[in-house]
Amino acid sequence: MVFENAPGILSHAAIAGKKEADGPLGTDFDQTYDDTALGTASWEKAEAELQKEAVGLALDKGGLKADSVDVIFAGDLLNQCISSTFGLRDFGIPFLGQYGACSTMAQTLLLAGLVVDCGAAQLAAAVTSSHFCSAERQFRLPLEYGAQRTPTAQWTATASGCAIVGFGGKVKLQHALVGKISDLGIKDAANMGAAMAPSAAESLAAYFEDTGTRPVDFDAVFTGDLGSVGSELLRKLLSEENIDLERKHKDCGLMIYDRTEQDVHAGGSGCGCSASVLCGHILKNMESGNYKNILFAATGALMSPTSQQQGESIPGIAHVVHLVREQ
Amino acid sequence: MVFENAPGILSHAAIAGKKEADGPLGTDFDQTYDDTALGTASWEKAEAELQKEAVGLALDKGGLKADSVDVIFAGDLLNQCISSTFGLRDFGIPFLGQYGACSTMAQTLLLAGLVVDCGAAQLAAAVTSSHFCSAERQFRLPLEYGAQRTPTAQWTATASGCAIVGFGGKVKLQHALVGKISDLGIKDAANMGAAMAPSAAESLAAYFEDTGTRPVDFDAVFTGDLGSVGSELLRKLLSEENIDLERKHKDCGLMIYDRTEQDVHAGGSGCGCSASVLCGHILKNMESGNYKNILFAATGALMSPTSQQQGESIPGIAHVVHLVREQ
Repeated sequence: MVFENAPGILSHAAIAGKKEADGPLGTDFDQTYDDTALGTASWEKAEAELQKEAVGLALDKGGLKADSVDVIFAGDLLNQCISSTFGLRDFGIPFLGQYGACSTMAQTLLLAGLVVDCGAAQLAAAVTSSHFCSAERQFRLPLEYGAQRTPTAQWTATASGCAIVGFGGKVKLQHALVGKISDLGIKDAANMGAAMAPSAAESLAAYFEDTGTRPVDFDAVFTGDLGSVGSELLRKLLSEENIDLERKHKDCGLMIYDRTEQDVHAGGSGCGCSASVLCGHILKNMESGNYKNILFAATGALMSPTSQQQGESIPGIAHVVHLVREQ
Repeated sequence: MVFENAPGILSHAAIAGKKEADGPLGTDFDQTYDDTALGTASWEKAEAELQKEAVGLALDKGGLKADSVDVIFAGDLLNQCISSTFGLRDFGIPFLGQYGACSTMAQTLLLAGLVVDCGAAQLAAAVTSSHFCSAERQFRLPLEYGAQRTPTAQWTATASGCAIVGFGGKVKLQHALVGKISDLGIKDAANMGAAMAPSAAESLAAYFEDTGTRPVDFDAVFTGDLGSVGSELLRKLLSEENIDLERKHKDCGLMIYDRTEQDVHAGGSGCGCSASVLCGHILKNMESGNYKNILFAATGALMSPTSQQQGESIPGIAHVVHLVREQ
C-alpha cells in the first residue's frame, strides 16, 4: 500500500503503568500511573481509562478537538474489545473496532493513514491498549494464584498509545503492508514469540521484496513484540532468506523493560507495548531527527483461551508501516 | 463517505444452519447445514467453518481465486475473533480483523468498499459469522442448563455472509456512514434491541441529514438486528425527529425467522444474521431488480460478559451503507 499524499502524524501520546515507568523508556511516556487500577474499580475499567487518557492527551498535544476527528480505529486484547468501547464512548468520534492482537497498533495506524490519504477523512486516530492484570486473568490465570511463569513467557505491558493522522506533521506514512495469517503449528501459549516470528519474517520479507529495499536502507526495523525468543527466531528465519536484519532490528518488547533488573522473562508484549513504544519513544525520536526512516512491524498472536483449550495452534500476523521523517 | 469510483459487489455467498434454512429466507441461502457442528468437534470450529464456506463459495461463484483478493476484512462475536482467524487461516489473504459486534457486516463492507474505491486494493472481501451455540455459551449460559429466555431476547443466527468488492457487479456502493458509540444506559443483556435502537436512529438520522434524503427515497431501509423491540423503538425515535421510517423499514432480525412458527422471541441477531440476509436475500433481490436503492444499517451492542458483570451499560453502534442497483 503506497500512501501517495503523504499523510502525517499530527500528534501522539503514550500512557503507561508503574513497571513501564521504571523501565528504560520511562521518561519517554507522556503520563505514567503508579496505581494499577488508575482509580477505577477494576483492571478492565483501568485499561479503558488508559485509552481515554491516550486519546485525550494526543488531542490536547495537537491542539485538536474530538469532534474534528472523522474516525477512530481502536482495539485491544480484551474480549469484545471493551477497553476501546468504554474508553472511547464519551468522545463521540465515529468508531471502527479493530482486532489484531498485539499487531493492532500497526493495523490501526495503517487504516488511519489510508482514510486520510484517500480523502475519506481529514483526521483519523489510531489507538490501542493493554493491561497486565486484565490480560493475565483473561488469557492465563488469576493473579492471586501466583502461577510461576515460564522463561519464554512475555509480560503484557500496562500501556496505551494514540497517534492522530492528518495532513501535516514531521513524520509521514509512506508505505504499509497488510499481513497474512501464518501458522506453523506452535501450541505453547507461553511462547508467543515463537508463534509470531514466522509472520514477522513473512511480512518483512514481502515488504523488502515489494519495495526493493533491504534492512540496511532503514535507520531501524522495529518489531513488536517478539521478545527475546521471537526476535532470535525472526533474525534466523530472515537470514535463511539472505536478509540480514541483525544490525537494524529493535523489538519493542525488548526495549520497554530492562530484563536484567525487571522480572519480565522474554520481554514485553500486549497491544499497548508496541503502541506506547511507537507513540512515546519512536515518534519522539523521529521528530527530533534521531531516526529518519524506519519500519514499524507489529505482530499479533490470533488465539484465544477457547481455541487453546480446543487444541488449536497459534496463528500469527504482522503488519508493516513505513514511516519517514520529513527533511 | 462517498464512493467516487463506484466499487461494486462482484460476488457474494450466504451459509446458514437448520433453523435459518427452515425460516422464510431458507431458499435464499446458498448452502445450509442440518448439522449444527458442521462435522467439526466444537461449535467454535463449526463457526469458523461457516466463514470458510462463505468465503470459498463467494470466490467460486465469482470465478475468483483467493490469491487475487488483496485484503479481507473479517470479524465475529467470539472472544479474539477466532472464527475469523481459524476460518480464514488457509486462504492466505492479507487479513484485518474487525470488531463491531452485530454491526460487523456493515463495517467490513464499507472498509472493503473504501480500499477498492481509493485504489489500495483491486479486490477486497468482507465476511462475518455467528453461531447460536457458540454465542450462547460465551455470552449467556451453557445450553445444557436450559435457561428460559425472556420475551425481549433475540436468537443468535447460525450463519455467515461474504461479499467480494471490486470494480464491476450490478450492485454498487454509493455512500457509507461510520457510526458513533451511543449509550443511553440500557443494562439488560436480554434486550439488545433496546440498547442498539438509539445508535440506529442516530446513524440513520445523520445519514438522511448529510445526504438530504428521506426514507421514502429508498426502496427499503434494512436494519440488522433490532428485532421486534428495537425496531419499534427505532421507528419511534425517528418519528420524534419527523422521519417516517415505518413504510420502508425492514429488520434482518425479523426477516430471517418466522416468529409465529419459530421460537425466537424478539427475532434474530448475531453478525451472521444481517450478513446472511444481505448476502443471501438483499443482494440477490437487488441483482434481480426487486430493489434498486437501499440502505443497509447494521447495528451492534458493544458489550462483553465482563463489562456486564462489572455493572456497565450496553453501548450501541450502527454503520450505514448505501447500495444501488446499476440501471
